[in-house]
Amino acid sequence: MQESTSGATALKVVLYGDIILPNEYRLRDKSDFPIGVTGVSDDASDAAKEAALVGADAVVCVRFDHPSKHAPRLRLVQLQAAGYDRIDFDCVPDRAAVCNAFGHTRAIAEYALMTMLMWTHRWKPVEDSFRAGSWEYSGAMYGPLRDELNSRTVGILGFGQMGREIAAGCRALGIRVVACARRPAAPDEVDASYPLERLDDFLAGCDFVVVCIAHVAQTEGMIDRGRLARMKRGAVLINVARGPVVVEQDLYDALTTGVIAGAVIDVWWQYPDRSDPRRRGSRLPFHELENVFMTPHSSGWTEQMMDRRWDMIVANLRALWRGERLQNVVREPGAR
Amino acid sequence: MQESTSGATALKVVLYGDIILPNEYRLRDKSDFPIGVTGVSDDASDAAKEAALVGADAVVCVRFDHPSKHAPRLRLVQLQAAGYDRIDFDCVPDRAAVCNAFGHTRAIAEYALMTMLMWTHRWKPVEDSFRAGSWEYSGAMYGPLRDELNSRTVGILGFGQMGREIAAGCRALGIRVVACARRPAAPDEVDASYPLERLDDFLAGCDFVVVCIAHVAQTEGMIDRGRLARMKRGAVLINVARGPVVVEQDLYDALTTGVIAGAVIDVWWQYPDRSDPRRRGSRLPFHELENVFMTPHSSGWTEQMMDRRWDMIVANLRALWRGERLQNVVREPGAR
Repeated sequence: MQESTSGATALKVVLYGDIILPNEYRLRDKSDFPIGVTGVSDDASDAAKEAALVGADAVVCVRFDHPSKHAPRLRLVQLQAAGYDRIDFDCVPDRAAVCNAFGHTRAIAEYALMTMLMWTHRWKPVEDSFRAGSWEYSGAMYGPLRDELNSRTVGILGFGQMGREIAAGCRALGIRVVACARRPAAPDEVDASYPLERLDDFLAGCDFVVVCIAHVAQTEGMIDRGRLARMKRGAVLINVARGPVVVEQDLYDALTTGVIAGAVIDVWWQYPDRSDPRRRGSRLPFHELENVFMTPHSSGWTEQMMDRRWDMIVANLRALWRGERLQNVVREPGAR
Repeated sequence: MQESTSGATALKVVLYGDIILPNEYRLRDKSDFPIGVTGVSDDASDAAKEAALVGADAVVCVRFDHPSKHAPRLRLVQLQAAGYDRIDFDCVPDRAAVCNAFGHTRAIAEYALMTMLMWTHRWKPVEDSFRAGSWEYSGAMYGPLRDELNSRTVGILGFGQMGREIAAGCRALGIRVVACARRPAAPDEVDASYPLERLDDFLAGCDFVVVCIAHVAQTEGMIDRGRLARMKRGAVLINVARGPVVVEQDLYDALTTGVIAGAVIDVWWQYPDRSDPRRRGSRLPFHELENVFMTPHSSGWTEQMMDRRWDMIVANLRALWRGERLQNVVREPGAR
């Protein structure tokens, strides 16, 4: 635990957890108002946590499960993440707001573009074969022609912040984009927009389907055997939303029987935990498939994402210090 | 050899060589004027070639080395390629023009973008490690942060058609672009422009250097040991121009001693031929380096490129039929 104060009226901020502590420099760089910073590591004692929270105005964390009944000034539990599944709301005082942070959509848009380009230009077979000594794919030897992404139709399922950013990137490059979402996309954002009731028609027209839709009860298992069968045989499914939006077994079957051509999977059906730190993302051997690109929930995990996130965090701390309105509120004060 | 004629005033076109013959359908689809088409395969006899050329108005080819003294009507030798090193100009009648074709810049722009995204997002280590079962790069496990391409500066060396197209794609995605070329780029095309005399300053400021400059005597060996040393240690060199613009040994040394971080190589110092069809692109073992992405002169080799190329070819055939001006003239009639 360390403490420093920049002034008598400083906002007292607790950086809570090992994940947060390395970003203290971002807080100090960005804050243009007086702050007092206290750091609490994961292995701090309950007494040390208690001591840090007494007198704190705000906590920045990704996990919050320490009862903060002795934190009379606490008015903001600010997440350094979008997800708030590790916040025990019973531990948050009534008068405190809980806010989350974003900033990952730009990184994920680059990831989607990268993987679509790699599929279309057949990166893996071309590079592997040439590295092994073959010129079979060479233009100089008049090898087989490949394709350009600008000849393809990219479908965006779910048109929130992430869908919008991916669509904008594709359209900036002249790629045709169609969307399927609860609310229609604006005509200047996409080439065509489908309501969710026409999901089947949407799927039938796409070369890539990028799943960006929120994981809620109504979307769980939305992409199942029947939906996959509606896709083109040459199409590729890209999931950057949440694993359970897609039915695990159905996707595996579609990939191994040629129902669709391939998949790019960044989000999974299961994650490792302390009892099984190398637990695979699926109980099925997706990692044995050549027609799968797989990444460990990493598409949005960039320095620039973290920097944008701290811009949002510091904006909320500044708002708290000035008595202004908080942004990205997950739970309003007194809302329980 | 096959022949068909669509009318009395048809333009007589010879498709000359095995590389050209499969594209007859493109010619037929695109031509809106009467044509008579004759195909000549590579293993046709000299007499058969002669017979095809007699009465021909135009030849489409990538190689032309048959003396065409008995081709009194021949007015156009139209390449299905940009390069004309396989045209024996002594075989082309004085009254015939030689024209080439382009259409590959869009594909190469996608290739440059793809490989820059792959480097920046660390595609290979992330995918390899996760496929092997590790979550070390996971955002969900708070792994190391990576970068976004929009935080990088892309340098374009040579600002012709290809450089322009790459710059436009990058800038559409909000990526900073600087150019270095003989003639300055327009202010609305790049964020900064350097003359060739300031190549060293240009190189020092780029995270990626995309070599797009024509291979002529003045540019041969332009990127040598000294130039590579000017680049950032974390920078990546991408060559989509011609191999000899970069000094082979110097690039290899820079990659193996950490002078620069990596290279993307699509164009090579040597190519296979009949005597050695698996000859590697370099006498040095670039294929053993982890920090090299390598492709067999294939970055521009797409269906869409070939289609644009045939748009140009048919536009010239149409111009010939109408008595209008030819485009992309490599040698004017009577210019020898």
